[in-house]
Amino acid sequence: VLNVYASIDLGGTKIAGALATADGQVLAQRVIPTESHAGPQAVLARIAGLVEGLAAEIDVRPHALGMGVPGLADLQTGVVKFLPNLPTQWREVPAGAVLAQALDCPVRLLNDVRMATLGELVYGGGRGTDGAPVPGALVFYALGTGIGGGIALDGRLYLGPMGASAEFGHMTIVPHGPLCVCGSRGCLEIYAGGPAITGQGVRLLLAGQTTCLYDLVEGRPERVNPAAMAKAAAMGDERVRAVLVEACTYLGISVANTILTLHPRLVVLGGSVAEIGPLLLDTVRAEVAWRVGMFSAADIAIEPSRLGNRAGLWGGIALAAGIGI
Amino acid sequence: VLNVYASIDLGGTKIAGALATADGQVLAQRVIPTESHAGPQAVLARIAGLVEGLAAEIDVRPHALGMGVPGLADLQTGVVKFLPNLPTQWREVPAGAVLAQALDCPVRLLNDVRMATLGELVYGGGRGTDGAPVPGALVFYALGTGIGGGIALDGRLYLGPMGASAEFGHMTIVPHGPLCVCGSRGCLEIYAGGPAITGQGVRLLLAGQTTCLYDLVEGRPERVNPAAMAKAAAMGDERVRAVLVEACTYLGISVANTILTLHPRLVVLGGSVAEIGPLLLDTVRAEVAWRVGMFSAADIAIEPSRLGNRAGLWGGIALAAGIGI
Repeated sequence: VLNVYASIDLGGTKIAGALATADGQVLAQRVIPTESHAGPQAVLARIAGLVEGLAAEIDVRPHALGMGVPGLADLQTGVVKFLPNLPTQWREVPAGAVLAQALDCPVRLLNDVRMATLGELVYGGGRGTDGAPVPGALVFYALGTGIGGGIALDGRLYLGPMGASAEFGHMTIVPHGPLCVCGSRGCLEIYAGGPAITGQGVRLLLAGQTTCLYDLVEGRPERVNPAAMAKAAAMGDERVRAVLVEACTYLGISVANTILTLHPRLVVLGGSVAEIGPLLLDTVRAEVAWRVGMFSAADIAIEPSRLGNRAGLWGGIALAAGIGI
Repeated sequence: VLNVYASIDLGGTKIAGALATADGQVLAQRVIPTESHAGPQAVLARIAGLVEGLAAEIDVRPHALGMGVPGLADLQTGVVKFLPNLPTQWREVPAGAVLAQALDCPVRLLNDVRMATLGELVYGGGRGTDGAPVPGALVFYALGTGIGGGIALDGRLYLGPMGASAEFGHMTIVPHGPLCVCGSRGCLEIYAGGPAITGQGVRLLLAGQTTCLYDLVEGRPERVNPAAMAKAAAMGDERVRAVLVEACTYLGISVANTILTLHPRLVVLGGSVAEIGPLLLDTVRAEVAWRVGMFSAADIAIEPSRLGNRAGLWGGIALAAGIGI
């Protein structure tokens, strides 16, 4: 009999679920809408139903469930503290206890980006050739609408109190920069978050300063996004390329600061904004190369995510199986 | 019979040595000039002589020696890799092996700031009321001519490869700021290092813009330093106060970034620049309070060093005794 674990990645609009073995063999998976307007109890019932459905599909019950939530959760107590992108009822919700009772198995909760970091550690770039996490530190940047992060040290996820560490998106990059939603100014997210990059693209488009991007999106601002901008830049749209390089330069400064702090072995860049691709990686690597002068950064790998948007789901399997945590 | 350990803090101009018990009872200590011009072999002989002299004084030989060096050293091999402020012969010097043979005891080497961090962890602010290091992360800033740092996690020093992590002084604070000696631009050290602060004080003095500072140093620029500037600011020298607040604001940005990364329980500010005192602490705390919005920073203590310039020596005792490392 296989040891099967369940993983749930709870998002504002979608819930992804999977059953897998601890060595990473996926046995069943499915994505359903969150329907968050119905409130926490209904969403938790949907999650339990999703796991039950997957278990019925393969006729094996999971030993444990690992779940990532888009906000703050207490790993010790399984209580969801606060989910900024879901309705306000998600405060002090004992999601772990509710699901453990419904599914009759242990349930562990984690912030979704920290869970994705765990996925990268155990099943992604952090996995050595022998299958075990390689020593040293791993840093994960989740580049999306917001910029989140995670840290793993010597094969174990680093959490800090409440699992709230590694908030790279709110590092100050420009001391007197614009106000951020977090209350500070000049945060990385303001310069390198998805909306920031898209906003620059829309600005160029509306100002009539784009060439290839205009053609690609047929002049429609709602079609602009970082991936389309990267495509336009590769086709020769120099102004679009310049704003991408600038955003990635700010990201590179943050990565350099994190490297100076933790001297990691590996930095993984994931999330939808990482779809910018080589221009993002090259710019970040170049910035790190000249900004990190206190020790050699030559052997610090800066790589795209191997797991893509499945990093969270994989991390949930490791979380449920108690690997790397 | 007491278990006695030896500690050496090697500096560019002075060598401090001590013998102490693992619980922190100092039995003998002495400071001698480094005489670095004589080269590594002669300096190592002076260090061995210093330890022998202290041992003879109390008639007890140390079980082990912990030594901090102002640069890069390999903890595993005891090899000094590079000391930027000492003559260039200090490259690949097997200092650990040489001293172990001379003193007939194990010798462990560490970067001096990381060793001071270990001192703070085991004998300073990191020491809980029961005598054991309290859980969570401790971050140490050594604010001097340069700005170094150290990290301890859950009661153990975090080193990274070669013990070269926590180089907070070379975090980028201003993306396009002035060139730094490390090759990057806009590093913290450029704004909050001792020479930067003193330089601002001298600028104000020479431009005729100081009041109390002018009187304090009798108009002589060579007497200006951060402590004198702090005194002048406290006496009502508003322009001097403004440059101190600006420097401490940049330091506060770096501390906020480090807090967002590691969510520590305690940040210790040490080194000669910390002698600025309450103005420095208040400014850093205020900056952290509004810049860290992703989790509550209210229970993160930001404190001056309790050990002052003895943090390194204390750390050497912990290093020798294998505590917190």
